[in-house]
Amino acid sequence: MTRELLTVVLVLVALSSTLGKPEKQAAVKKEKRVPQTLSRGWGDQLIWAQTYEEALFWARSQNKPLMVIFHLEDCPHSQAVKKAFAEDKEIQKLADEDFIILNLVYETTDKHLSPDGQYVPRILFVDPSMTVRADITGRYSNRMYAYETSDMKLLLSNMMRAKKFLKTEL
Amino acid sequence: MTRELLTVVLVLVALSSTLGKPEKQAAVKKEKRVPQTLSRGWGDQLIWAQTYEEALFWARSQNKPLMVIFHLEDCPHSQAVKKAFAEDKEIQKLADEDFIILNLVYETTDKHLSPDGQYVPRILFVDPSMTVRADITGRYSNRMYAYETSDMKLLLSNMMRAKKFLKTEL
Repeated sequence: MTRELLTVVLVLVALSSTLGKPEKQAAVKKEKRVPQTLSRGWGDQLIWAQTYEEALFWARSQNKPLMVIFHLEDCPHSQAVKKAFAEDKEIQKLADEDFIILNLVYETTDKHLSPDGQYVPRILFVDPSMTVRADITGRYSNRMYAYETSDMKLLLSNMMRAKKFLKTEL
Repeated sequence: MTRELLTVVLVLVALSSTLGKPEKQAAVKKEKRVPQTLSRGWGDQLIWAQTYEEALFWARSQNKPLMVIFHLEDCPHSQAVKKAFAEDKEIQKLADEDFIILNLVYETTDKHLSPDGQYVPRILFVDPSMTVRADITGRYSNRMYAYETSDMKLLLSNMMRAKKFLKTEL
């Protein structure tokens, strides 16, 4: 299974040409490092899931929608959206109270999380019924799950939409 | 695929009775929170992978063995081993220079990472050829990948063993 996973991972890496800046290599070995945070700047006061498996479990068990943010730390677009996201009090409050949240600098093996490609930044919602909400999109037809700094109102309304579950019988 | 993943996740959760303390629920909502770190105390100066997929990619691309530490933040055994691990300069140096490192408070979907069950704390090594090194074990026959605070010398020698790759042709 490990080898199969690797194959998927390598395919994803090949596809995602914008990814892959080697964080590890970029770090200078001997200087004092700032400890990495799970929030990575998207909201230090929020409680973040570490992995997709963990996030799915919490979404299911707490019956909350999951918000997955794909980004890269050295991508200017990601940085700008991150700043707007972290400074938006309504978004932070809603994320804190009603969502399971996960930010990733690496793709998962679930292709449903990249309905129209692996670009950053992009934000996907997953219903507590474990269905990726491909219907909740941003403003851009070529990158449907991308958001810019001017889209925070739209993101907030999309979060409200994600709170209306697809199925409640599960 | 999401639903299939869920099935696996739920099976894993059912199996791992020691897991599942709901971090999110345990947190008091309104007080100032300390940002979560990726190191979770296992070495703030080290560079940690966030997910297993990411860790496998770095192991492969940097040709370094991967060390995966499973633990729980409210488990006294995990806490004790973590302290010993974080304070051991030789282990920290070797981990920093020659390993891809990942610590998880949640199980992955790769059953090879739990050869004799899902307990914490446990430490598994993965060769850059993507093979889980089930042969690198600790001192306890009933929990072969468990370590205690008195086992840091053994852990260090196991790290040295993990550096001798299974295959170099890959």
